[in-house]
Amino acid sequence: MRKVILSLAASFDSLIEGPNGEIDWLPFNEEAGAIISTFLQEIDTVLYGRVSYEAWGAYTPPADSSDFEKDIYNTLDKMTKYVFSTTATSFAGNPTVVSSNVKEVVENLKKQPGKNIWLYGGANLITTFLNLDLVDEFRVAIAPIILGAGKPLFKDINHRVPLKLVEVKTYESGMIEVIYQRATT
Amino acid sequence: MRKVILSLAASFDSLIEGPNGEIDWLPFNEEAGAIISTFLQEIDTVLYGRVSYEAWGAYTPPADSSDFEKDIYNTLDKMTKYVFSTTATSFAGNPTVVSSNVKEVVENLKKQPGKNIWLYGGANLITTFLNLDLVDEFRVAIAPIILGAGKPLFKDINHRVPLKLVEVKTYESGMIEVIYQRATT
Repeated sequence: MRKVILSLAASFDSLIEGPNGEIDWLPFNEEAGAIISTFLQEIDTVLYGRVSYEAWGAYTPPADSSDFEKDIYNTLDKMTKYVFSTTATSFAGNPTVVSSNVKEVVENLKKQPGKNIWLYGGANLITTFLNLDLVDEFRVAIAPIILGAGKPLFKDINHRVPLKLVEVKTYESGMIEVIYQRATT
Repeated sequence: MRKVILSLAASFDSLIEGPNGEIDWLPFNEEAGAIISTFLQEIDTVLYGRVSYEAWGAYTPPADSSDFEKDIYNTLDKMTKYVFSTTATSFAGNPTVVSSNVKEVVENLKKQPGKNIWLYGGANLITTFLNLDLVDEFRVAIAPIILGAGKPLFKDINHRVPLKLVEVKTYESGMIEVIYQRATT
């Protein structure tokens, strides 16, 4: 069965943005691009919260962007996209909008043939998915910094989620990537 | 010069205790005992906050405890202990009590000959030390669990702390140990 994979980057203190939405502490270099490109090869579907989709779901890099950045968004453009929102019903790029029955929708999606499914975020959607036990795998790239303040990767999770360590990768930049599967209990 | 090393265990969501102080999710087995014993060989001084010292600073394991647990507390007993407290002035076991001038006291301690220094915790003392830039190295054992709620390892840190990745170790139990040094900026 297809897996729902939460894949994103966080600081060592488990924050995904600084207090004013800053992501300048994340290296977006060729190494990071290669990690993302490799990941994109195994997925064909991307799940966004409303805010994340509005920021990045239909994003086109400017003409003077690096080749790897253009490649990434080019690849993302061909994916099937879902936006989870209870307030908005249509979005640029015409993704499928899910406004209710999240658990049923996602469980049904996982039963369909296809590659794996990327849970893109943001934080509210991650909370919803974790509380419904819909995340099968976690791939978190941890940046070598304590931000001190900002938006937590995990918040308002209403139960413990035991994990099974799959792999840890280290990178030249000092990033580490930790891969867990949800443990079967 | 001696280093101040923050060494402790946290959940994957960077919590050190559950909402009611739970640490039952931490494996305290022979593997964990071996990690702690190895670490203790390179330190001779332990720094506690008041609450942590009162809970663990003068702790003696019960007679029916495992050998590795007794060994650990036996070794800890021979260490030089400091308690940082602005409210209490004496403690069981007669540690040195520091009530003010934290930065000067710690910088002076680092200049004295000796092995490395363990910043034991808890969370308030960690905050104080990070905000004063007194931590040289971080060794955090990350348990394979999302706790969802509890006490954060890092809170109220008033500036970013850039880190340099030194090493990542993985363990049979699914624990990973991440070692960083504070990056020189």
